[in-house]
Amino acid sequence: MDSASLELFGLLAGAVTSMGFIPQLVRGYKTKKLDDISYFMPIVLAFGMTLWFIYGLLQEALAVMVANTFGAACCLVLITMKKMYS
Amino acid sequence: MDSASLELFGLLAGAVTSMGFIPQLVRGYKTKKLDDISYFMPIVLAFGMTLWFIYGLLQEALAVMVANTFGAACCLVLITMKKMYS
Repeated sequence: MDSASLELFGLLAGAVTSMGFIPQLVRGYKTKKLDDISYFMPIVLAFGMTLWFIYGLLQEALAVMVANTFGAACCLVLITMKKMYS
Repeated sequence: MDSASLELFGLLAGAVTSMGFIPQLVRGYKTKKLDDISYFMPIVLAFGMTLWFIYGLLQEALAVMVANTFGAACCLVLITMKKMYS
């Protein structure tokens, strides 16, 4: 697989992983309940995704950078929503 | 940053991201309640992480492979727990 195809595959993987948080945010927004979510999950994930972003930066892997920016942002939104609804 | 240090940094990032699911699993195990969690979140994340695993395989990036194997496994455990407790 050539470099461009690999990067494209990474972007696909990143898009799917990032989208994973969307249904949780939608559900939380609809039910206004996020009690069963542990604060530590989005906090630790946001921290880890920031590290992945730096890894992507050092590797010059755009897919890793984009995916983790979006993912970390979703985690921060989730933390904010849980705080608002509790 | 040399290749070995970069891989080590990736492993650190992977370790932190993977650990993010642990507090959620612990909380779910303690409270026996995972109602506020959307099934789609762990399902989509497990699928995305499988794609990341393949990306890591093609890139020969061990950190990406290890982190996403563990993360996907945690997502599958979360799905199983939510099913059991509902």
